[in-house]
Amino acid sequence: MNKVETYKIVKFDKILEALEDDVIIEFPLTVFVNDKELATLLCTPEDMDLLVLGYLKSEHLIETKADIDGLVIDDDKGLAYVTLHKDVNLDEFRNRYITSGCASSAVYYKTLDAVKLRFNQLPTHVVKMSDVFECMASLNQQSDLFKATGGVHIAGLFEENRLIVTKEDIGRHNAVDKIVGYLLEYGITPENKTLYLSGRVSSEMVLKCAKAGISAVVSRSAPMSVAIKLAQMHNILLMGFVRGHKGNIYSGKERVEV
Amino acid sequence: MNKVETYKIVKFDKILEALEDDVIIEFPLTVFVNDKELATLLCTPEDMDLLVLGYLKSEHLIETKADIDGLVIDDDKGLAYVTLHKDVNLDEFRNRYITSGCASSAVYYKTLDAVKLRFNQLPTHVVKMSDVFECMASLNQQSDLFKATGGVHIAGLFEENRLIVTKEDIGRHNAVDKIVGYLLEYGITPENKTLYLSGRVSSEMVLKCAKAGISAVVSRSAPMSVAIKLAQMHNILLMGFVRGHKGNIYSGKERVEV
Repeated sequence: MNKVETYKIVKFDKILEALEDDVIIEFPLTVFVNDKELATLLCTPEDMDLLVLGYLKSEHLIETKADIDGLVIDDDKGLAYVTLHKDVNLDEFRNRYITSGCASSAVYYKTLDAVKLRFNQLPTHVVKMSDVFECMASLNQQSDLFKATGGVHIAGLFEENRLIVTKEDIGRHNAVDKIVGYLLEYGITPENKTLYLSGRVSSEMVLKCAKAGISAVVSRSAPMSVAIKLAQMHNILLMGFVRGHKGNIYSGKERVEV
Repeated sequence: MNKVETYKIVKFDKILEALEDDVIIEFPLTVFVNDKELATLLCTPEDMDLLVLGYLKSEHLIETKADIDGLVIDDDKGLAYVTLHKDVNLDEFRNRYITSGCASSAVYYKTLDAVKLRFNQLPTHVVKMSDVFECMASLNQQSDLFKATGGVHIAGLFEENRLIVTKEDIGRHNAVDKIVGYLLEYGITPENKTLYLSGRVSSEMVLKCAKAGISAVVSRSAPMSVAIKLAQMHNILLMGFVRGHKGNIYSGKERVEV
């Protein structure tokens, strides 16, 4: 499917000039699980099968690809039909986790996250600062859609300084889900791998990593408060504002080798 | 409430240095309407009453502030309780609009949007290019939270070159909802006003503007394809990539005065 559409625009730079410009497509993909509607994801229409796989993993609806009996994507209608081997209660996965105390302690938003991840210890690996800078520079180079449209985020998985895969999407959460889906699809272990991101790091993104077993996250942008708390709880190395040869370590400084 | 939290971090710039840094707070606000849970918004905990007002307007649950019987926000628990004068069917507002044809024509994602906005003609005004550059420069100056944390988006409403209000939020959609809520709260007409944005322009953001009667949107970032289509349908002036004295016009070029 096309990821980019050409529009007639008018550019202003001292004078008005009519020309054509590439614009990123925003594609609505509605996901059905066992014939029930789950969610509509606004996404870049590329690797939508990986997006759905990663999204289902992030939502605790699958653990591995083997949990899926069938996955059909209807490009024309923007629909994804997933059949799971087991019955699922979609109400349960939607259940909110609301603490009675101060809201800032409500680091999990869903009951299942709180239950399943509470004592989840991820495997850890040491990350060399020189690799961090090299990989981030490489990530910035990989983003073809960003260069064309300025409208996407990119996520890339690396082992040491070796690129495994990058995925682009209009949604930074989708880009992470596509990476998680890639791990599931090709049976790749998340151990010793570091996720690099162009966009800000939200709590949801750290939760996606914790669920997928990814224990190191490096972003060129800012992290949010709850993202830091969750990274600390799950022993996830979290770096932000990595630009050029500078960066901030928010969690897991003992795993960074200068 | 605090919008920023201080964390102990380690900064790397040739050497490792332990210091403190301000991080933007990510606050979960769960909205209940007539005792039913509607949604959880991850937001910046400032002007949450305006956020809820704007969100309800964007979701077609209210037209004006008078539709609300009561609005209580519980900061400690992260809960907003809204009572409306009328009963609402939350299932109806969730109904998806799925076309049988090519997905790229599915510019509305919800039935209510398609029904209520189809023939909605917004009032139009002419925008001077010199005002556009002046307002965008002013917007960039206003963002205190961005300067402190690098983690938020800003939206600002201007009339000609006069600033009316700016709102910041970790979510660019929330920032727009806060502006819409401000219009409702203070009974300000959207006519002749232009919305300036730091972030990318999605279809949802254009829909929020169409519903609120805001007919001109200017961003320093990229627009998405469906956002352009919706802007053209609703006669919304849409500009993107406005930086310095350059910019692109994607919709409504006849309303731009050079």
